Amino acid sequence: MSGAADIERGLRDVVDSVAAPRHPTDAIRAHLDRLTKPRGSLGRLEELALRLGRIYGDPPPPFDDVAAFVLAADHGVAARGVSAYPADVTAQMCGNFAAGGAAINVLARAVGARVVAVDVGVAADLEHLEGVVQRKVRRGTADLFEGPAMDREEALRAVMVGVALVTEGPTPGSGADGESPSRTALPDLVVVGEMGIGNTTAAGALTAALTGASADRVVGPGTGVGPETLRRKREVVRGAVERVRGIADPLEVLRQVGGLELAAVAGVVLGAAARQRAVLIDGFVCTSGALVAAALCPASVDYMIASHRSPEPGHEVALRHLGLEPLLDLGMRLGEASGAALAVPLARAAAALLREMATFESAGVSERTPAPRRPGADAPDGTAT
Amino acid sequence: MSGAADIERGLRDVVDSVAAPRHPTDAIRAHLDRLTKPRGSLGRLEELALRLGRIYGDPPPPFDDVAAFVLAADHGVAARGVSAYPADVTAQMCGNFAAGGAAINVLARAVGARVVAVDVGVAADLEHLEGVVQRKVRRGTADLFEGPAMDREEALRAVMVGVALVTEGPTPGSGADGESPSRTALPDLVVVGEMGIGNTTAAGALTAALTGASADRVVGPGTGVGPETLRRKREVVRGAVERVRGIADPLEVLRQVGGLELAAVAGVVLGAAARQRAVLIDGFVCTSGALVAAALCPASVDYMIASHRSPEPGHEVALRHLGLEPLLDLGMRLGEASGAALAVPLARAAAALLREMATFESAGVSERTPAPRRPGADAPDGTAT
Repeated sequence: MSGAADIERGLRDVVDSVAAPRHPTDAIRAHLDRLTKPRGSLGRLEELALRLGRIYGDPPPPFDDVAAFVLAADHGVAARGVSAYPADVTAQMCGNFAAGGAAINVLARAVGARVVAVDVGVAADLEHLEGVVQRKVRRGTADLFEGPAMDREEALRAVMVGVALVTEGPTPGSGADGESPSRTALPDLVVVGEMGIGNTTAAGALTAALTGASADRVVGPGTGVGPETLRRKREVVRGAVERVRGIADPLEVLRQVGGLELAAVAGVVLGAAARQRAVLIDGFVCTSGALVAAALCPASVDYMIASHRSPEPGHEVALRHLGLEPLLDLGMRLGEASGAALAVPLARAAAALLREMATFESAGVSERTPAPRRPGADAPDGTAT
Repeated sequence: MSGAADIERGLRDVVDSVAAPRHPTDAIRAHLDRLTKPRGSLGRLEELALRLGRIYGDPPPPFDDVAAFVLAADHGVAARGVSAYPADVTAQMCGNFAAGGAAINVLARAVGARVVAVDVGVAADLEHLEGVVQRKVRRGTADLFEGPAMDREEALRAVMVGVALVTEGPTPGSGADGESPSRTALPDLVVVGEMGIGNTTAAGALTAALTGASADRVVGPGTGVGPETLRRKREVVRGAVERVRGIADPLEVLRQVGGLELAAVAGVVLGAAARQRAVLIDGFVCTSGALVAAALCPASVDYMIASHRSPEPGHEVALRHLGLEPLLDLGMRLGEASGAALAVPLARAAAALLREMATFESAGVSERTPAPRRPGADAPDGTAT
């Protein structure tokens, strides 16, 4: 295994390869405005079509191959009683992913995506699980309240695990979803999520450290934890954030207060951006990994699509920092990429508008006259007006 | 054709056949709570699973056959300049539905639903359009500002058109989506929407009359119309609502200030409820038709699923009256069942949770202890806690 400096050079190359989406906005918007509907009347679906058009070209592809990466790892801080579940649930849930019975397996099947569950740092031996890709960097992190969660090389390796999952695919034979055969091709569309008991604490610390928000704002009662657990989590996050105050290097923040699966989330996002694929980001925990990607590579934000809004208050903080507005708001707080999976049909539908919808000219439908640009003064209120 | 009294008896039979969903809530909720996820952590997707379980049983079917009914008709009131589009766009859009190029065709294909476009009262001859089911009751309504939009028998016939579409299916050979062959079987899941230039004015009048809200609350600037059109629309709706003040019979309100496609929407909702099918309701205009169904048959509300939130202010008024909370909020204001189509994958996903997800016992995953009932004091904040 190469040393930290070599891995860091590899990561630098990935970051440097991320370019802004290259397809011109104006032409795509003009296309959307020629379609047989009042201008802007498909609301955020049109915004999504525009974003996808910028990334993939107009029209975007049909997203036949959608990969949902679920990064799993354990957290030393879980021993402090910051979670309602025992730490061995991380390993047990990996078994559930492998067997195809977890929420993400069900939702991915429902929307036509394949699940790639990955052990980035679970504190148990999972080599017997054929449906889980083995990429263990270490067996769980150290307690991030006491000191660094991991060393710099480990953080870098975990990020590069994520990059490689997108750009190289799981190695043949390493397995993926319990039902579908492992594919190694670059997916058309990337979905990312996580699993790890204790990781809302790490996500809170990362979010506070990378956005400048207070620990109290990112760990809130919105999550449903009771007053005692909440007090403990806040204390832990406050202490961790205090320790990294003033550190500008996102990799240093990541290794101090982050997690292995959060590092891998950052890597998946960077890998997707490097290969010009849109990436559907799951909820609060996953978005904290996206914050790391954005700090390392601001250009990667153009490839991120916020899938859903979590009730966890830190999520709003992270979303605002990234300038992203989620597509769905269903009160979901599970993780596992479950919310991101539900946004896949919206991405397919948005792309289909550009690919398949008739224009006023082609369909022989009258346009309103005159037709001012939105947000014009007198836009129509629906075809149904 | 039978007279109004005969048709009214037929409608009464349909209403009388609507029963409350018969599957017990407690057993479904207990099942949801045994699945491998923190209780309630899938948020509104669990609520949706519960509603579908109550209607269809646990587990619900996979919704292989989803029919999106798009009811089209014209409105005499359009001549008052309440719309940004000329009235012949209704007929032109029917041609677009038949050719498969409209937004609803594209979105239905994207989510795996078939489109059944129906002429309930377009003011043009559409018999040449093979992809549009012919059920014309009359060529557009009369101007609802001057007097009744239609007579009672016409209103009844339009409602029964909607009922029959669900319960009997389009007659063989009448065509449906431009691409898929017409099916006559009862769909597993019903999607409903509308098309008709001028129909937000009729929908505003219906919504005000059936909820008691003022015309000013249901016709708002949220739609994007300019101040001049808005002023005209408000004046028209105010006058129409004034005329039906104090009328308790929803069919009389419907025939005075409604529309043929809104009557048919009410019928589709009643037909779905009578056959114990959930019905995904589109936006503002469509929901005004659902208000008629609810007024005729309060039990039908249990079968309604509000798919998305329209920016039109009258939609919120109607949703509150029905006690429904929409699943999506994407700023869509197109109609055509476009928003309802986007909720189809959510319904399939929710049903799949009950059908396919592992339980704590079956997957060997540890539950938190103790496990209080939500909304308990110390619920877990995600598997990811």
